[in-house]
Amino acid sequence: MSILLEQAQSAVRAAQQKALELGVKMNIAVVDAGANLTAFARMDGAWLGSLDISIRKAKTARFFDMPTGELGKLSQPGGPLYHIEHSNGGLITFPGGLPILDSNGRVIGAIGVSGSSVEDDHAVAQAGAGAVRDVH
Amino acid sequence: MSILLEQAQSAVRAAQQKALELGVKMNIAVVDAGANLTAFARMDGAWLGSLDISIRKAKTARFFDMPTGELGKLSQPGGPLYHIEHSNGGLITFPGGLPILDSNGRVIGAIGVSGSSVEDDHAVAQAGAGAVRDVH
Amino acid sequence: MSILLEQAQSAVRAAQQKALELGVKMNIAVVDAGANLTAFARMDGAWLGSLDISIRKAKTARFFDMPTGELGKLSQPGGPLYHIEHSNGGLITFPGGLPILDSNGRVIGAIGVSGSSVEDDHAVAQAGAGAVRDVH
Amino acid sequence: MSILLEQAQSAVRAAQQKALELGVKMNIAVVDAGANLTAFARMDGAWLGSLDISIRKAKTARFFDMPTGELGKLSQPGGPLYHIEHSNGGLITFPGGLPILDSNGRVIGAIGVSGSSVEDDHAVAQAGAGAVRDVH
Repeated sequence: MSILLEQAQSAVRAAQQKALELGVKMNIAVVDAGANLTAFARMDGAWLGSLDISIRKAKTARFFDMPTGELGKLSQPGGPLYHIEHSNGGLITFPGGLPILDSNGRVIGAIGVSGSSVEDDHAVAQAGAGAVRDVH
Repeated sequence: MSILLEQAQSAVRAAQQKALELGVKMNIAVVDAGANLTAFARMDGAWLGSLDISIRKAKTARFFDMPTGELGKLSQPGGPLYHIEHSNGGLITFPGGLPILDSNGRVIGAIGVSGSSVEDDHAVAQAGAGAVRDVH
Repeated sequence: MSILLEQAQSAVRAAQQKALELGVKMNIAVVDAGANLTAFARMDGAWLGSLDISIRKAKTARFFDMPTGELGKLSQPGGPLYHIEHSNGGLITFPGGLPILDSNGRVIGAIGVSGSSVEDDHAVAQAGAGAVRDVH
Repeated sequence: MSILLEQAQSAVRAAQQKALELGVKMNIAVVDAGANLTAFARMDGAWLGSLDISIRKAKTARFFDMPTGELGKLSQPGGPLYHIEHSNGGLITFPGGLPILDSNGRVIGAIGVSGSSVEDDHAVAQAGAGAVRDVH
């Protein structure tokens, strides 16, 4: 099972709405179960450099089925996965990427958000991931 | 002046609608005046390889402010721009990429579509580019 | 549905066997439905440069769900997909890549073979793809 | 002397068997004396992001003829090889990559394993490397 475009677009919309509430400008990327880009939106005036980061966060979250910030705890100097960021063409391991689950708890894709503090990025990603509902 | 997210998303919606009418599955990418990805949608079941092509078509159309198919006429063997595809990390020069103009005729972005024949790709790109209206 | 490792390994084995019969040394790559490498074998003494080609052929066949040689007919000078090879980090569009189908005709992966003439490459790929049986 | 395909495939099989015993899903890559991929298997359901890491671990182990984890001790902040990961298109320097030796102690290739904790990755790599026997 992989996320559908309709679900991915609802995740983007919910993330955009949350960003507006927080007063921040975000790049929002959703990838499918194969880590392929499925939906994307860059809000007007968002940092250019965050475009690439948002997509990498989404891919990273799906590559290892965990929040990017969790991977980042393991990739610190002295940690077990130090410099894992050099794999897969470049990972991003700070917060803002989250797996997207269906109602059975299976990973069907992931969302990556970049454009503000990592706390804001994470909050906006949560709003997006939480908006995905199963399609019946 | 650069395309706004609202305009880019309306281009994607119009392109999706046209693709549904044609019964084809498309990757649809919109870039801004800086050739940076602004909105993207991959329809369920669209070819995996068309994701990258749609984004390259949009970038190529903005890089040179002309339809990708026009550039392709110039890049044939013996032509004045032979092998221009090797520049910019890889261009796509067959139809499916179009500049997006504002009401004054200025280029404010571009759209790239990939997933079917180049005729279908071009028709869907036209539907998307034509849907962009000035924001007042 | 995506190809299983057991199926991918049986494709590699059948391709190796065919290569031995033909007296050629091949690189053999199988990717899954997501175009991710699943099984690979490089026969002793096979061309080093064919390693990368075999993987690209497998990916190309899955990216567009067609034999690589068919795509190559469309990407010739003057053809509709001229220079499509510049997309997706580099495609290979001459024969030797084939989609792998399940018994319902759905694409579940692809095989790419490189190391000899394109006729031999294609024949070995056919032997590999044909060896995949549904797992019950 | 370089590892033969038959030896590389026996290393993959032994590693798969060890992974099954540990109940983990691994990507397993074997490279030859030239650091070129020779055999590969991705177990069903293994992390997508581990595919690339397993190949990089195998290459890294052969590039420097030492376990990847040993290199990682030297690449920490303040260490003599700080940031060596930036070379060779991206190294992986945490455990899971091991040189493969012949009976005379010469390095004939390397194995890289990724998909679980670095302890599991290392144990599975050891099982694979240990299974290689000289061919007479």
